[in-house]
Amino acid sequence: MSAYAPGRKGLTWLDATPRFAAGADTPRAYLERCLAAIGAEEPRVRAWVCLDEAGSKAAAEESSARWKAGRQLSPLDGMPVGVKDLIETRDLPTQMGCKAYEGHHPRRDSALVQALRAAGAIVLGKTVTTELGQSEPGPTTNPWDASRTPGGSSSGSAAAVAAGMVPCAIGTQVGGSIVRPASFCGNVALKPSQGGIHRGERQHSSQSTAGVHANSLADMWQVGIEIASRVGGDPGALGLMGPMALPEAARPQRLAVVETEGWALLDDASRAAFEEQIEALRARGAEVLRRGDHPWLEAFERAVAGAKAVTDAIVGFEARPALLELQRNGPGGLSARALARLRLSERVTVTQYRAALAEREAMRAALARLAPLVDALVAPASVGPAPLWDPRAPDAESNPRPTGDIACNAATSALGCPAISLPRMAVGGLPFGMQVVGFRDLDARAVAVARWVADGAA
Amino acid sequence: MSAYAPGRKGLTWLDATPRFAAGADTPRAYLERCLAAIGAEEPRVRAWVCLDEAGSKAAAEESSARWKAGRQLSPLDGMPVGVKDLIETRDLPTQMGCKAYEGHHPRRDSALVQALRAAGAIVLGKTVTTELGQSEPGPTTNPWDASRTPGGSSSGSAAAVAAGMVPCAIGTQVGGSIVRPASFCGNVALKPSQGGIHRGERQHSSQSTAGVHANSLADMWQVGIEIASRVGGDPGALGLMGPMALPEAARPQRLAVVETEGWALLDDASRAAFEEQIEALRARGAEVLRRGDHPWLEAFERAVAGAKAVTDAIVGFEARPALLELQRNGPGGLSARALARLRLSERVTVTQYRAALAEREAMRAALARLAPLVDALVAPASVGPAPLWDPRAPDAESNPRPTGDIACNAATSALGCPAISLPRMAVGGLPFGMQVVGFRDLDARAVAVARWVADGAA
Repeated sequence: MSAYAPGRKGLTWLDATPRFAAGADTPRAYLERCLAAIGAEEPRVRAWVCLDEAGSKAAAEESSARWKAGRQLSPLDGMPVGVKDLIETRDLPTQMGCKAYEGHHPRRDSALVQALRAAGAIVLGKTVTTELGQSEPGPTTNPWDASRTPGGSSSGSAAAVAAGMVPCAIGTQVGGSIVRPASFCGNVALKPSQGGIHRGERQHSSQSTAGVHANSLADMWQVGIEIASRVGGDPGALGLMGPMALPEAARPQRLAVVETEGWALLDDASRAAFEEQIEALRARGAEVLRRGDHPWLEAFERAVAGAKAVTDAIVGFEARPALLELQRNGPGGLSARALARLRLSERVTVTQYRAALAEREAMRAALARLAPLVDALVAPASVGPAPLWDPRAPDAESNPRPTGDIACNAATSALGCPAISLPRMAVGGLPFGMQVVGFRDLDARAVAVARWVADGAA
Repeated sequence: MSAYAPGRKGLTWLDATPRFAAGADTPRAYLERCLAAIGAEEPRVRAWVCLDEAGSKAAAEESSARWKAGRQLSPLDGMPVGVKDLIETRDLPTQMGCKAYEGHHPRRDSALVQALRAAGAIVLGKTVTTELGQSEPGPTTNPWDASRTPGGSSSGSAAAVAAGMVPCAIGTQVGGSIVRPASFCGNVALKPSQGGIHRGERQHSSQSTAGVHANSLADMWQVGIEIASRVGGDPGALGLMGPMALPEAARPQRLAVVETEGWALLDDASRAAFEEQIEALRARGAEVLRRGDHPWLEAFERAVAGAKAVTDAIVGFEARPALLELQRNGPGGLSARALARLRLSERVTVTQYRAALAEREAMRAALARLAPLVDALVAPASVGPAPLWDPRAPDAESNPRPTGDIACNAATSALGCPAISLPRMAVGGLPFGMQVVGFRDLDARAVAVARWVADGAA
């Protein structure tokens, strides 16, 4: 791949579809180009657990026929997608990056996969996840530097999209698993409001959201809204709401920088790059508040200051019953890192869990209070570009966050609000994202602001 | 079994444990008595899908040794329980009353089963559920009249407890599946606040709660609180909170009768029995409001008037993705009745689903508004005693509610509040329950009022 530069054009879908309608291109040919990119890049990037080449080719033939007849099922008809291997698919196994699930193949589609297929999209394969979406990394490397992590837990989804193998892939986020890999790999991504996109059978965490990696905001939004309009969001959630195509860019009156626990961890170059972005937004006419500028903002920062600990307590407690069962199934099913985290989670009492839930509620109330003050928040999408990661390093086994620190992501995850990662910066030749953070269930407004932040780009 | 009479003493647990501590009885001997009752009653009642006799005997031996040594794990140590066959158990299959799940045996315990075992309780077997907790009934009959339904979907749990086979069984409720069978079978039951007891992997409904059938309020509460203190409630929920033993009876200042859609369906004898109960409560000094007595109560009744339709829309929409996948797996996996309901659910649009969620929220707000006015609500637990049910009747296949009408239960389910069924009445020689309905997350207060309503009985 050529060197990373913000603003580069990655592989996109919607802008290819007019040529399908005109008969100048077909989804079948588009798929072939994806397979060629996979052939070229996969040996290095290792984004995929498995591919369904034959099934995808057949589905692309059918889609091509529908486009030819003007009967496409949706704007996504024929789009090859990668699906994170935590999400169940009828035709391919779902192994969750976990030895205990080797060969696991429930013969059913998760709700979002059902919706994607109903919209005509093609599940090209399953993308690498860290073990059970937690810490233990898979084999995926960063497309821009194979010695670095692609981020996690949606490692393969971000890397496959960034490497031009597919225009879109589904990820999930508990503590930063969509936004951080998007930042490290240089694609756009939507982590919707909690429950915005139906995440299927894996409902055991109260802080997990399915989302979308893409190379354009238009593709990203279309995938999300096509899913939610068919199967809704998580049970009991409203699900993603908004127009059936990318919202218009909306110039914000006022933005605020949110620092969170990540701010202190930014290196100088990353901080400088981010400040440059803020200056550019000001130059374009947006007022941008900093934490000292308003007492509500300061109160918000104080409310989210413990987001990492809150996330660890909630996620640990909620994952524990299932992990204990996997452990009881015998040795070897879980990695040493997963077992270490299980031990930590066993120290979390029900009372501490309830306290963490209450603290999360307070965080959410503090965010809601900012709605009259600002249109959206902006923040670094990670504490910098992708760190080096060598699984053979002496401390590799004990590194609790081998796919990168969640310090910029824990708060925006726990808040249950939409976060959009934008590939706005490069630091040391590597991508570094900026996140636009909106208000709960107002995802379409957050995306409209993100589109403005991205210079009106679709 | 002898004829049903309210106030009868069923098989209980906690009052048996002092004799374990004193060495006059053992959990092993208690289990043997349960197995004898099963041997005598099961051919007629058919409450069980499968039993683990050998494993239970071994576990009861261990428990007996712990009691002898004064090292019991909890007051539940050695208690045989039935677990509804929707809930996963490591040692026994989980077939959900559904052909598509025949032989299904995920080798893991659901969180609540994990908690029960950690408390020393013994999973004696899996109890019959209607198909996937929906309408299609299993083989269980009403212990008081084999020609009548035991209610559903927790058919086997209610029947096993009422028939004295076990002191306690776990049920789940979406639209009335704990409270109604308790009413029909004559046991007490707790349907906790939404999410009060962790329901494990089956989180696909936003309106499903695990709960407890027992023959005493003390057993009922102890089982709930021992589970919640170990694994909490559903992810993100507070889980059942309160004292580690049955709350003291609390005399209510004021109660209100809630009518809901069920009121109009009560037969004269059932209505008279219920009115007699209300008069008795008044005679004991509780003020009891009726819907005409206060405008807030009237507003509440209006808010819940569409609870059945709201429940059908929400439950149908949420169950649809999984049912569609089962259907795609080929014919025969789902009953004709399940397929008919799937067809109905396919008419529910995302917009209608969101409207139903909003209506449910309004119902919940209307209930919360009553908190300053009354201590609890009381209502019939079903529209009368168990109806006749003959699976060979000509209209059996098309009966949409073969285990009884949810008209008294849809509202108290959708409200997400605690509901306790009390076996207070007999109509035509059959049990007929009264439900005490409390405020969300204040389960302990609702149970305290229920204990007072039950004449202070434990």
